[in-house]
Amino acid sequence: MDFSEIISVVNPELDEVEQELELNIKSPVPLVYEISKYLLGSGGKRLRPSVVLLASGACGLTGGAERVYAGAALELIHTATLLHDDVVDEANLRRGRPASNVVWGNKATVLVGDFMLARSLGLIQACGSLELIKAVTDAAARLAEGQVLEVMSSSNMLEVSEEVCFGIIENKTASLIESCGRVGAVLAGADEGAKSALSAYGFDIGVAFQLVDDALDYSSTEKEFGKGVGQDLVEGKMTLPLLYALGRSTEGERERANAILSNGDGFSDEDLSFVRGLVDRHRGVDRTIETAKDFIHKARTAASALPENDYTKSLLMLADYVAERKS
Amino acid sequence: MDFSEIISVVNPELDEVEQELELNIKSPVPLVYEISKYLLGSGGKRLRPSVVLLASGACGLTGGAERVYAGAALELIHTATLLHDDVVDEANLRRGRPASNVVWGNKATVLVGDFMLARSLGLIQACGSLELIKAVTDAAARLAEGQVLEVMSSSNMLEVSEEVCFGIIENKTASLIESCGRVGAVLAGADEGAKSALSAYGFDIGVAFQLVDDALDYSSTEKEFGKGVGQDLVEGKMTLPLLYALGRSTEGERERANAILSNGDGFSDEDLSFVRGLVDRHRGVDRTIETAKDFIHKARTAASALPENDYTKSLLMLADYVAERKS
Repeated sequence: MDFSEIISVVNPELDEVEQELELNIKSPVPLVYEISKYLLGSGGKRLRPSVVLLASGACGLTGGAERVYAGAALELIHTATLLHDDVVDEANLRRGRPASNVVWGNKATVLVGDFMLARSLGLIQACGSLELIKAVTDAAARLAEGQVLEVMSSSNMLEVSEEVCFGIIENKTASLIESCGRVGAVLAGADEGAKSALSAYGFDIGVAFQLVDDALDYSSTEKEFGKGVGQDLVEGKMTLPLLYALGRSTEGERERANAILSNGDGFSDEDLSFVRGLVDRHRGVDRTIETAKDFIHKARTAASALPENDYTKSLLMLADYVAERKS
Repeated sequence: MDFSEIISVVNPELDEVEQELELNIKSPVPLVYEISKYLLGSGGKRLRPSVVLLASGACGLTGGAERVYAGAALELIHTATLLHDDVVDEANLRRGRPASNVVWGNKATVLVGDFMLARSLGLIQACGSLELIKAVTDAAARLAEGQVLEVMSSSNMLEVSEEVCFGIIENKTASLIESCGRVGAVLAGADEGAKSALSAYGFDIGVAFQLVDDALDYSSTEKEFGKGVGQDLVEGKMTLPLLYALGRSTEGERERANAILSNGDGFSDEDLSFVRGLVDRHRGVDRTIETAKDFIHKARTAASALPENDYTKSLLMLADYVAERKS
């Protein structure tokens, strides 16, 4: 089943989210709008607003502007971090198009990210719940911490343990999706049990989502994935597919891999193809997907505590989709 | 009178603000704390927390943790934008020390700025007032817009009018200090009159503060100012001292200046010294200071609507200090 079918139960609200996004990137400074629009209009999945809307629906809230505001706010935070990510990673492509930093330069890209962060928190404020604001600002702080952790780790790939890898994933990706689940429950006035269940659901699909992303980076084609393939390795990022492969390598393979990965001056084509070969040979991608599926299983278990309705059904389908997506 | 004497009435609370700042930059990621601490510990004036504390005091609120939280939050937002500013401007020095981007690189600097933004909004949330959150997020969005406007303008200095110059100053600097005044009043539960007066006060001293900054950039020495002198010109930023000088130049001077300023490839030492000479000759610095004093006059008028007490007296002294400071 494709993504749009899975989330069809909240389609009308997702249209409202789009309108709210459009309103909130309007600025008297034309370039601010232009850059914001470029990335927001490039066909992101709107995973975060979908989780907010489905989570609030699962808890019985199916009307009111607040869940639209919250959904838009969380998409804006996500988009802001993509802008900053592209500057940090010196990215060339994002969603199959030249990245914003390539088109408009680092300066404007950083600042428009800041603008979006500020606007997103203005939107969250409009929901009128301090508990909500706390959930979102906590997640935003963790997100930045996760990104710093990733930057630090990229200076020495070989020192990145599985624990550090998960630390990055949890902070950088899972914490924001966790907050989407929680925000939906808070908006619906749900009890602590439902809040915890939806937080756990968001966290677990968030980890899985990033793991699949890391797996696709080694296995997808550029056309499918919308960004350069093997990009993580090129950028010096240790991810689980490679870590798993290294764990199963022969001593000879590991020695050569260590020599390559500890070379801070970048990799030759031969280096890259050796490392990719290693990931293939030791099924790093498959093992990563297996781990992602473990998290999806946990997410489904958490969601089973929710009321049985169409929204909860969609949450369950969405969990499966996250593990199975190819792009 | 020096700055610390002027604000002595809120000195104990400023110590609490320092403790709150320290608490809020703590992170499980050591580098996040290290970078945050480096800039926060480099002797900033704490102008923004001072305005929050004096404004709330002027309206009769002299106790409670909220004004400490709010003061710390606004200093964090300011510090975050300095970090992003240094990346955007490719700065070398900040407050007399190597800028963060020089020490740790652009990547970590951008991300630690994001972390501080998130933490600052968490702190504002802890104040428990949605009106407050709106004031601060609006200001943060305007701040980013002002910075983008500045970046856009630097690509064509000659097209920057006085109106655009003020647009940048108002968004980039004045809006945040305006929100400091408003936040103080809101925390104190002041009436609309006091809120407007303190917003206007903050806005006007904010404009004056930036104008003096722009004047010092052409007139100060590096030792006094803590950053390179003539840096605005080197970075292609049109500011009021130069704009005023161009407005009074002879046709011959203007032709040569236009030729220099429209050269996108940077300036020779001879170019720079010609332009600086122009600013000297036509008293661009003095005229800018005069304009700053007009804003200080407006700020004093706004503050005269406030209750007469020690805090209001400090606000008036602070206004004078802003126009007269030499560093």
